[in-house]
Amino acid sequence: LASGVPVVFEPQGKKLEISSGITVLQSAIEAGVGIRSECGGKGICGKCKIAIKNADAVSKVTKTERKILSQSEINSGIRLACQTKIQRPVTVMVLAESRFGSSRLQVLGLERKAKPNPSVKKFHIVMPKPTLFDATPDFERLLAASAKCRPNDDLQIDHELLKTLPDSLRGSNWDVTVTLHDNKIIAIEPGDTTAEMFGFALDIGTSKIAGCLVDLRSGETVATGAIENPQVIYGEDILTRITFAMANKTNVKTLQKLAVEAANKVLQSSGKVDVDSNKIYEVVVVGNTAMHHFFLGIQPKYLALSPYVPAIKRSINLPAKELHLKVNKRAITTILPNIAGFVGADAVADVLTTGIQESKNLSLLIDVGTNTEVFLGNSEDVLCCSCASGPAFEGGHIKHGMKALTGAIEKVRISSEIEVEYETIDDARPGGLCGSAVIDVVAEMLRNKIINRFGRFDSKRKIERFKRSNDVMEFVVAESAETATGKDVTITQKDVNETQLAKSAIYTGCSILMKRKNIEKKRINRVFIAGAFGNYLNPGNAKLIGLIPDVPTEKIRFVGNTALSGAKSALISKKMRKKATQIANSVRYLELANDPDFNFEFSKALLFP
Amino acid sequence: LASGVPVVFEPQGKKLEISSGITVLQSAIEAGVGIRSECGGKGICGKCKIAIKNADAVSKVTKTERKILSQSEINSGIRLACQTKIQRPVTVMVLAESRFGSSRLQVLGLERKAKPNPSVKKFHIVMPKPTLFDATPDFERLLAASAKCRPNDDLQIDHELLKTLPDSLRGSNWDVTVTLHDNKIIAIEPGDTTAEMFGFALDIGTSKIAGCLVDLRSGETVATGAIENPQVIYGEDILTRITFAMANKTNVKTLQKLAVEAANKVLQSSGKVDVDSNKIYEVVVVGNTAMHHFFLGIQPKYLALSPYVPAIKRSINLPAKELHLKVNKRAITTILPNIAGFVGADAVADVLTTGIQESKNLSLLIDVGTNTEVFLGNSEDVLCCSCASGPAFEGGHIKHGMKALTGAIEKVRISSEIEVEYETIDDARPGGLCGSAVIDVVAEMLRNKIINRFGRFDSKRKIERFKRSNDVMEFVVAESAETATGKDVTITQKDVNETQLAKSAIYTGCSILMKRKNIEKKRINRVFIAGAFGNYLNPGNAKLIGLIPDVPTEKIRFVGNTALSGAKSALISKKMRKKATQIANSVRYLELANDPDFNFEFSKALLFP
Repeated sequence: LASGVPVVFEPQGKKLEISSGITVLQSAIEAGVGIRSECGGKGICGKCKIAIKNADAVSKVTKTERKILSQSEINSGIRLACQTKIQRPVTVMVLAESRFGSSRLQVLGLERKAKPNPSVKKFHIVMPKPTLFDATPDFERLLAASAKCRPNDDLQIDHELLKTLPDSLRGSNWDVTVTLHDNKIIAIEPGDTTAEMFGFALDIGTSKIAGCLVDLRSGETVATGAIENPQVIYGEDILTRITFAMANKTNVKTLQKLAVEAANKVLQSSGKVDVDSNKIYEVVVVGNTAMHHFFLGIQPKYLALSPYVPAIKRSINLPAKELHLKVNKRAITTILPNIAGFVGADAVADVLTTGIQESKNLSLLIDVGTNTEVFLGNSEDVLCCSCASGPAFEGGHIKHGMKALTGAIEKVRISSEIEVEYETIDDARPGGLCGSAVIDVVAEMLRNKIINRFGRFDSKRKIERFKRSNDVMEFVVAESAETATGKDVTITQKDVNETQLAKSAIYTGCSILMKRKNIEKKRINRVFIAGAFGNYLNPGNAKLIGLIPDVPTEKIRFVGNTALSGAKSALISKKMRKKATQIANSVRYLELANDPDFNFEFSKALLFP
Repeated sequence: LASGVPVVFEPQGKKLEISSGITVLQSAIEAGVGIRSECGGKGICGKCKIAIKNADAVSKVTKTERKILSQSEINSGIRLACQTKIQRPVTVMVLAESRFGSSRLQVLGLERKAKPNPSVKKFHIVMPKPTLFDATPDFERLLAASAKCRPNDDLQIDHELLKTLPDSLRGSNWDVTVTLHDNKIIAIEPGDTTAEMFGFALDIGTSKIAGCLVDLRSGETVATGAIENPQVIYGEDILTRITFAMANKTNVKTLQKLAVEAANKVLQSSGKVDVDSNKIYEVVVVGNTAMHHFFLGIQPKYLALSPYVPAIKRSINLPAKELHLKVNKRAITTILPNIAGFVGADAVADVLTTGIQESKNLSLLIDVGTNTEVFLGNSEDVLCCSCASGPAFEGGHIKHGMKALTGAIEKVRISSEIEVEYETIDDARPGGLCGSAVIDVVAEMLRNKIINRFGRFDSKRKIERFKRSNDVMEFVVAESAETATGKDVTITQKDVNETQLAKSAIYTGCSILMKRKNIEKKRINRVFIAGAFGNYLNPGNAKLIGLIPDVPTEKIRFVGNTALSGAKSALISKKMRKKATQIANSVRYLELANDPDFNFEFSKALLFP
């Protein structure tokens, strides 16, 4: 079975070759990818749903599948893994619902307290009925009654809402609740509905789409949800997706549709609490600049071509309906502003949450991802850059790397006797290494001199856990007997080198910012590390491998997904929203590619400290 | 042939009964309705197009018709008069293109000079290309270049335009013309297109839809056009159409669609001049309140039910695209404000054009139509009312009445020897009497004592032109030998009574306004008479029959279709647009139905003076 057709499983990123004609489910078992299958592959339970990008690569939809899948699912390329036979090279997207265990993607990071003062407001009014002596037109009657609640506002009404205004006012016996977004009337509901006022914060990440449902009155999070970004089927990294989008306008729409559908799924999963989606009046969105363009259906081509220019910097408001988000039909979608081509609204949200631009203290903020954004500064000035750190810290480009899902090894210690201890997410049998474990392993190997400063394996040492595969050195972290896949989970010479490239990119960003602002590391008061892996990261190990500058550990804070937290704070507070615009306008961007010291700093940082 | 199936021809309003099975063309000849038929009814020339509301009332579409008509025409109920046999009661709409001669509907009335300062602005900018050292996002780059032309504006961009911004800026080599509507960017065109900036003013009348294409730079009218309002198929009067609309939501949409399609036809007919419809950036619309609601697709039900409340008073801006108007896809439609249920944006435009609210002189303004709006006042205060004058002055409810089309008698004189002289529109053979002729005939009959103060025919007099038909007295205005139809054009006892009702309604409006404002007629400095028939009206005769107060003729001015002129002035001047809002907000409305003196005044006014 080990030759022939290449198959890639996403989001796990598992690759293998199989012989033509076996089912996706069999291949998944082969690859150690967990797919639910309660009926044992009989096509009855419908639990093993997957998405196939290229329908031609697999067998045709069977009658059995037609009984289980909706036409809409079939049109979207959804199949049952147990019924689908692989014929040609294919990428299989395992749907979240079909995966074993639950994803441990952290949804909300550090939150910043903000007094609720959302753009969305509600007020309940009762109007006098019209008479021949007071035939004030309906809308002006509504305005007159509203004036008691909103004395200084010139309220605007949407045309579609105006069309039904005469019937809706009479149908509710002139007793309604008006919902505003700023000065725009977006809903007129019968009776008093002021108690139900919700919003949604959304973080469109390259690999993950996360959201939280918020009670706009209290500012409290009601529910959270996250799923893999289904765009991964068109490329794990941003550049591949942009290349796909560049081919034609349909592709831009395809990527937009995938992002929106995923956002709707997050909305639905969050909506399992008892909240009517019609009572969600605003969606605040952040994402990196490419995700921003994809989500809005803007041609992203020029983000990928020098000089990497985004279409827009400023915040955008548009009807949620235009994006087909499943919320109130007149809800508003607000996209927070971008800073530069590689520093998007998600990074603005990071700065907003950590408040580094409001403090006199000097802070360093690092949001680790495929692109890592680094900010350095304080209330006087903040300078930022973007580092092409690659996916190593998200488990990508690492032989046994995986995302922070159930079964991922997240912490590793290696004793001086080269004994390995590890912890996995949900205490499941290990399936691979997530980002924090990669850092731990590399740091522990360095500490125990298994690798040297250049990252080279000390192949002369007699270490039981060493093995060779195709003449490449590997270090076994979890042995086949312990793992979910029945295969060793290892770290290879190449994995160590990938980690060096990634940490070097980030460190270079930090050091060039320090140079350009003429700041020595001892003057840095705080280091914020954001990103999905943040909370599990060992700061000592991060310093040890030279991922971050060597500052006292007590100055380091892991803040998690501050992008979503920042979106949430902009959702509940107009003041925070205004700050987001100030951040986008005031933070200075440094293009590393232009910096004369970049190459020197980068090659210097490649070595371990 | 004179018994059986009732048929009504619109817009002529001709009614007759025919025997089942004869063609529409034969019936039209019978009714004296001119329909073009170059091939003599062989179904070849395609000139005799008509619209049938109820397809079941006539024979099925023939193969001959399918050769001539498009599927879209057939779906819209368009037929060939020569091929369509009448089987049941039916209303036949004779399309404008199928009528003999051309309509002499006056399009633009008195115009008010206004310095061009439209909401639409254009400016040409050339931007520096982005570099790695200046990677300002596209929209912010556009704003920076625009700031030289629009230093104080916070410009907004439409989401759809943003989507294509990256390509359009690069495609035009960073050399574009920006079109604004207020502070909203509605177009970005390559190169310098500042020379092409057009707008359209539209008057949606109950019976007629008129428009003018305007060069927004100079304020000059480039072209005008007008067609019958095709909604007439669902009722000649407003109430019938509202009743139709009340039945269900589809009917509201049907009426909206008809109005919009007609507006597009007017646009197209005006567009025969060399103007690209993509260069039309704004459409300013006026109409009475019912037409306003129909055009916007707003449920008009409550306009017809006491207390006659419109949905909205204030001016509305919406994308022209939402209404499917065939102009630039991001053009704005501006609907001027209403005053009250029966005093709409068209009346606001009348006041705007005549400027009565800005002068110290006391003015009386009468816009004659099926509903006649009357205004009295000056810069201190203007009071207005609406009079249910009926369609008599538009040729409706008059046996041989017709609209002011080719062949309509428009002026009549009767000598003391009871010899009749008349003039027809386009000097064509007479087909009927238009409004001004009805007034002339009644006045001349009164002057010559053919009728008395009560409107009664003096049947004792031996007058050759007297005749009786079904025991009703008639006076022959044009004899059968002279007419287009080969039948006498007469005025009947009933026609005289209809005229009395109409003139009494208008006079009562005038006199109650004078009473409520405590103004005697000698204090009135100016009388403005607006309406489609205005320019041909004999002021002496209007006074003689008591249509308007007896003021010196030199104070009377016919101003024509000031509704359209007012829309045009709001199109070319923001100042005028602001004045329109001031008028809607400041003019006081008097509900005649509430006035204690109404019945007394009305019955008093029924008599001729």
